[in-house]
Amino acid sequence: MIGRLNHVAIAVKDIAAASAVYRETLGARVSAPVKQAEHGVTTVFIELPNTKIELLEPLGQDSPIARFLERNPDGGIHHICYEVEDIAAARRTLVSAGARVLGDGEPKVGAHGKPVLFLHPKDFCGTLVELEQA
Amino acid sequence: MIGRLNHVAIAVKDIAAASAVYRETLGARVSAPVKQAEHGVTTVFIELPNTKIELLEPLGQDSPIARFLERNPDGGIHHICYEVEDIAAARRTLVSAGARVLGDGEPKVGAHGKPVLFLHPKDFCGTLVELEQA
Repeated sequence: MIGRLNHVAIAVKDIAAASAVYRETLGARVSAPVKQAEHGVTTVFIELPNTKIELLEPLGQDSPIARFLERNPDGGIHHICYEVEDIAAARRTLVSAGARVLGDGEPKVGAHGKPVLFLHPKDFCGTLVELEQA
Repeated sequence: MIGRLNHVAIAVKDIAAASAVYRETLGARVSAPVKQAEHGVTTVFIELPNTKIELLEPLGQDSPIARFLERNPDGGIHHICYEVEDIAAARRTLVSAGARVLGDGEPKVGAHGKPVLFLHPKDFCGTLVELEQA
């Protein structure tokens, strides 16, 4: 079912400082920050030859990454995103296998404008898994 | 400097159970487990079209992932590995930028038989970064 690794998301308190680490210390190509008010994050993409790293900084009062950064004040890997061809079919397969879909269980439009689901970390080796329809 | 994302490593207590999650629930191609006594881990690779996920289970008394699993009993993303063309040149650039190389600071032969370095999480957004010479 899962296809390409779409991205690895790293939550950080200071996206400008994190961008500088990736641009200057690691010599990577780093995009400009984009505020995504409806998702409660500011995003930056680090473009690697085969995939991308997504830096996330909290935006607004109810950012979904605020609690993660309280527990991980230096930042850390927040989730990993795999592509699927058909998000509705993936959801049916996962639910029938007993996996828990977060939220109301329905796909939402994610930060890249495509349908996404988040899966419960306890069902996936302690990692928060996002599925994005490719 | 950094090139491809070589792999994302997920530490787990039970690699057979984690392999089943990726093979059966997520429908991915999963390799057979390999014991790497000199690295203190058993490894399994999940082959995605553009990169791979490495599952790690502790092996032996002094596994480098034992403490991580004490803190994260469900498992979790342990490190992220970027490829570099020249590990010695990468090391020089990083050290002169003030980044800390773990251990004695010299490249070691990693689990894939190639020279690797690990970088201090506090210098890289709270994430343990491995660099592997491609």
